[in-house]
Amino acid sequence: MIETPYLLFLGDAPDQLAAKVAQGIKDWRPEFALGQFRMEGCKAGMGLTDMDLAEAKAAGAKTLVIGVANRGGVISQAWKKVLVTALEEGFDLASGLHNLLRDEPDLVAVAEACGRQLHDVRIPSVKYPIANGVKRTGKRCLAVGTDCSVGKMYTALCMEREMLARGMKASFRATGQTGILITGDGVPLDAVIADFMAGSIEYLTPDNDADHWDLIEGQGSLFHVSYSGVTMALVHGGQPDALILCHEPTRAHMRGLPGYDLPSLQALRDTALPLARVANPTCEVVGISVNTQNMPEAEARAYLASLEAEMGLPATDPFRFGAEKLVDALAAI
Amino acid sequence: MIETPYLLFLGDAPDQLAAKVAQGIKDWRPEFALGQFRMEGCKAGMGLTDMDLAEAKAAGAKTLVIGVANRGGVISQAWKKVLVTALEEGFDLASGLHNLLRDEPDLVAVAEACGRQLHDVRIPSVKYPIANGVKRTGKRCLAVGTDCSVGKMYTALCMEREMLARGMKASFRATGQTGILITGDGVPLDAVIADFMAGSIEYLTPDNDADHWDLIEGQGSLFHVSYSGVTMALVHGGQPDALILCHEPTRAHMRGLPGYDLPSLQALRDTALPLARVANPTCEVVGISVNTQNMPEAEARAYLASLEAEMGLPATDPFRFGAEKLVDALAAI
Repeated sequence: MIETPYLLFLGDAPDQLAAKVAQGIKDWRPEFALGQFRMEGCKAGMGLTDMDLAEAKAAGAKTLVIGVANRGGVISQAWKKVLVTALEEGFDLASGLHNLLRDEPDLVAVAEACGRQLHDVRIPSVKYPIANGVKRTGKRCLAVGTDCSVGKMYTALCMEREMLARGMKASFRATGQTGILITGDGVPLDAVIADFMAGSIEYLTPDNDADHWDLIEGQGSLFHVSYSGVTMALVHGGQPDALILCHEPTRAHMRGLPGYDLPSLQALRDTALPLARVANPTCEVVGISVNTQNMPEAEARAYLASLEAEMGLPATDPFRFGAEKLVDALAAI
Repeated sequence: MIETPYLLFLGDAPDQLAAKVAQGIKDWRPEFALGQFRMEGCKAGMGLTDMDLAEAKAAGAKTLVIGVANRGGVISQAWKKVLVTALEEGFDLASGLHNLLRDEPDLVAVAEACGRQLHDVRIPSVKYPIANGVKRTGKRCLAVGTDCSVGKMYTALCMEREMLARGMKASFRATGQTGILITGDGVPLDAVIADFMAGSIEYLTPDNDADHWDLIEGQGSLFHVSYSGVTMALVHGGQPDALILCHEPTRAHMRGLPGYDLPSLQALRDTALPLARVANPTCEVVGISVNTQNMPEAEARAYLASLEAEMGLPATDPFRFGAEKLVDALAAI
């Protein structure tokens, strides 16, 4: 177990999206988020108290959580000095980056010398099976996006919160490092060996009560050429009964791919649903979740209303306006 | 480099398909395939001389190649005795299984004691990048299948042979252990970490002459729930200009998935082409490759003719009837 509370390390994050790990912890486990540590040039902020290591230590923080992701998951040399000092000052470190803390000899040496722990939540902790495609009991909902980082995890977490408030049986199933750091369990899907991706999702969402819903955290996008294979494994390994379409309408191009336009929500629906029905012939698209954080409220509400008319599906920003519509749609299945 | 010639180890293969690694080596590098080693209960055969280890050693074999795949890639205890004896008698071992020779302490100990090599072609030898989706020069052809093991690798190898015979610029690009054992190079895609799958295919098929064709070995199927994510990475990482649809018409259900029917070739076309156009808007489906090994010749020819009429595409069994039609179609792009 990772010791709490955390000091959230935002490093030299180039933008707010790069710090989505920290944002997720702050939003969903605020009691763990004691403060934030920012380096020169950091373009992200959590609205938490800025603390240096000594201040955070004095305030009771136990673990420095790397709350920022770099392309490729590299642990930059610019960060190294802070991480070494944190270990020396008595913090454990936790990270979801591809490049592991335990593969950095200097961090390992200092951690051993100081008796501190290095937590790499990126590493699969289980030997996953190859998917067998056998139909499982219980129900599953998967969020699929027009792009990466459009709010798939938040959609699932918002729906879980609303469902639990209604007394429904629901479990958020984490498939990325933020989700795992939030819930303490899950599959670090983008670090799983290719052949076992779909099997890892079958493992994550096993047989359950007939009225229980797994809310599976989506990853990537079927239209994002860097990560579409990961998304595909979720669509087939997850056997979803319900798909939620996720979108961020102000995005100028696919994240990290300047030459690629976002698909329409219609294109996402028409691509994802037939693929999902390979694994679950009764799958339906039940709603639309829009990340409207870059739109004024009136514009956001008008946009959602126009989507509902155009697509014939309930549409909301579950983080801003509540997940009721999406949960109503699930409850109707 | 793996020393040749090989003794092909067929183990206790439950059927001929399970020995497709050995079959591939025998068909495409017959000069490497000195003989076959079969255990009790083996249901596969290559039409090679059955040899025990001593006979193969006397005939000049240098390496025992594990030519049989088990579900999940496990090195069974039933095989272990043969492998240990082979090392003791002076063979190197080569394997493309997920479970690595080098992770078996008894094999490692004997190999060290006897001064022999353990070759695991399954292990990625390169730190692949994340795919960037940037358009590359040169042309690429990808074989996509209605199912796994329907002849995608053979299709690409047949086309390469025909193209080189015509003086065209062409390179078979291996993405599986058989292809890598045949050509000595490639990406073991099903063993690549999920986030780097598409990037590994970009790496495998870099910028090239405008009139050069990469013939990319397909893997899995967009309709096979266990492996569809791997296929998706090929479709997007490969940026194919041309798709070849591959099919095995006598298959009763998806390989390893008794509850799943094969899709039609129309469904494969209508699924694969829009996905491929995300990465390469000019991609076309140019032909159909059918594995007719389980059909009498007259029936096979009639089936191919009916497919051509129905689909409006050239159709052949390139291994049985030649790859001319498919290469003509590529040359016309």
